[in-house]
Amino acid sequence: MSEKRYLLTPGPTPVPPEVLAAISQPIIHHRGPDFKPIYERSLTRLREVFRTDQDVLVFGAAGTGAMESAVANLCSPGERVLVVSAGHFGERWRSIASAYGAEVEALEYEWGEIPSAEDVAARLQELGGAKAVFITHSETSTGVVCDLQSLAAAVSEQGALSVVDAVSSLGAVPLEMDEWGLDVVISGSQKALMAPPGLATAAVSPAAWEQVERSTLPSFYFDWQRTRKAQEQLDSAFTPAVSLIVALDVALGLLLEDGLENAFERHVRLGRACRAGIKAMGLELYSPDDDSAAVLTGALTPEGIDAVALRLALRDRHGITIAGGHGELVSRLFRIGHIGHVGIEELAGALVAIEEELAVAGADVEPGRAAPAAYEAFGTVATA
Amino acid sequence: MSEKRYLLTPGPTPVPPEVLAAISQPIIHHRGPDFKPIYERSLTRLREVFRTDQDVLVFGAAGTGAMESAVANLCSPGERVLVVSAGHFGERWRSIASAYGAEVEALEYEWGEIPSAEDVAARLQELGGAKAVFITHSETSTGVVCDLQSLAAAVSEQGALSVVDAVSSLGAVPLEMDEWGLDVVISGSQKALMAPPGLATAAVSPAAWEQVERSTLPSFYFDWQRTRKAQEQLDSAFTPAVSLIVALDVALGLLLEDGLENAFERHVRLGRACRAGIKAMGLELYSPDDDSAAVLTGALTPEGIDAVALRLALRDRHGITIAGGHGELVSRLFRIGHIGHVGIEELAGALVAIEEELAVAGADVEPGRAAPAAYEAFGTVATA
Repeated sequence: MSEKRYLLTPGPTPVPPEVLAAISQPIIHHRGPDFKPIYERSLTRLREVFRTDQDVLVFGAAGTGAMESAVANLCSPGERVLVVSAGHFGERWRSIASAYGAEVEALEYEWGEIPSAEDVAARLQELGGAKAVFITHSETSTGVVCDLQSLAAAVSEQGALSVVDAVSSLGAVPLEMDEWGLDVVISGSQKALMAPPGLATAAVSPAAWEQVERSTLPSFYFDWQRTRKAQEQLDSAFTPAVSLIVALDVALGLLLEDGLENAFERHVRLGRACRAGIKAMGLELYSPDDDSAAVLTGALTPEGIDAVALRLALRDRHGITIAGGHGELVSRLFRIGHIGHVGIEELAGALVAIEEELAVAGADVEPGRAAPAAYEAFGTVATA
Repeated sequence: MSEKRYLLTPGPTPVPPEVLAAISQPIIHHRGPDFKPIYERSLTRLREVFRTDQDVLVFGAAGTGAMESAVANLCSPGERVLVVSAGHFGERWRSIASAYGAEVEALEYEWGEIPSAEDVAARLQELGGAKAVFITHSETSTGVVCDLQSLAAAVSEQGALSVVDAVSSLGAVPLEMDEWGLDVVISGSQKALMAPPGLATAAVSPAAWEQVERSTLPSFYFDWQRTRKAQEQLDSAFTPAVSLIVALDVALGLLLEDGLENAFERHVRLGRACRAGIKAMGLELYSPDDDSAAVLTGALTPEGIDAVALRLALRDRHGITIAGGHGELVSRLFRIGHIGHVGIEELAGALVAIEEELAVAGADVEPGRAAPAAYEAFGTVATA
């Protein structure tokens, strides 16, 4: 019998059974009457999730493809942009913008630090402005979720366009594209949207569309104008990943039926539960110890206990997949994703397994504490 | 009850039930031990299908994304390339190369004409050479499959790199990447490989890799070097579409288990059957009337009978999807795909439906002739 699997990484995330049932339907043609209503509904649902009246462009790609589309459609060689970077995905913005020949300035934080609106405003003033500011909403490498609303306001006040990587945040924590005046919001199917990986999305404000007219960089597959023109006619510029769109449509339906507010609340409570479990084991948190860290929880193993070995033990002995750390933190950091279709039960189960494996590895932890603490922090257990 | 559907377009194509079962499995992590053996096997199987010892790079994208990757990784602004164009997808090569600022020369044929090695050699001599020649193996808009081996030999003799769009040909008709000296071969998951759309592939020769070092165009998501480096470690540069790769692996397994030669023979016989059925109705073929046209069959409706109305009737009254024509041929041309997981039974059924609908529309056809002719040409009916 196949061993049971538990996926608690910050992406890809587990998807609901309804989504798996949808993706296994026979292939339908993307220009036929079976697909068009599904396509139209998924585009409408995306607008609801992005909280925008603008079109949400859909690409068959990883989230990075849509990030690249923002650079290629907005920038021109030698044009100044600012990248706010406090982790791996902030650095990715810089790599992409550099690859395309933009003049890239950075507001660089230590990994794990939380970017502030004041710093962004000061840096933009120091630079004498920039065309666009690239921001990471939820920095998946550290667990930090920035105060996007205030950062975007600072960017806007300085006359720049805000371009936001919301790949791991959209659907997990509040994001109000139109109300917060965000110019470009990028996301992907495989995180809180609860669909398989392979679709990337970009929502574009009217001000950003004006800038698109002026960009001189090449782009074809990721060309926003071509994509918008096709989507306006419920068509797609190139053969879309129909199975993934059918799956995304079902996943978005589930998300919206339950309600975005409920999803946000669930993520906050799962974050509380995870942090409570980690602290009950006596471990040090790497991600912030507050409700902003609703997407994933980073923690450090006790000194002398190897995080890579811990992850292997979880994987091989429990069928549990969690994520590790980058760079110098690889031997200490582990990251637990609680994104999308995750229940407190499996999160608590994973915490128990971590506790057990740490004890086996010789850490000074007393098994039995993490799960009750997690349940209590989650808040579902009725207080008698 | 949902109406039965028959997909006879030149892509996406129907996929085997084993592939649908595979794609509906729970999401697994792309860096975990459940995925790695599947990934490794699918990469090995791709090499077998491409008939190459080189790595086959896999992108989450439509085939056009991989076509763009060839331009972005091989070319530099102002560098001369030649596009051989005899239909819609030849024109796409030109559009992409132009978007990236290459100096694009064209060897342009009327749609439906068959490119020749002599023309390619003469044009390259006239130009004094080119860095690369972009070729369409199976021109899906017309049904023409060129003699790729001779074209590539002519390109090679003139010192240029051959870059081949094999999106609708790979797995349907013979293609020998290494033996024929092809430099770059592009394909996609959704045609004869019998998998859902969303994955694109690029196989690259050593000579083409040398050229990659010299290219100065920007690319990030489609960067070949980054992709190769990741794949060499059984990793991927960005979150891959795991569900699609799991599905592709199963589809490639089915294809190779049956044998490529059997697949090629089946496509030839399906092409014969389709042409025989079309001719039995008294219709004019648009695609070539020989065994080279093994991928799809194009035909013209009788004068005065609208091809768009025919396709709508097939779709609405029979659940059958076929493809139409581009441009000025839209009112006369229809295209029947017989690619991948297609049986003679459903092809014959579609021919019967076409016959019936043409008669209803007032065409001078006598229902009952197409299917027997198709079966006979296919050659499975035992001759007593």
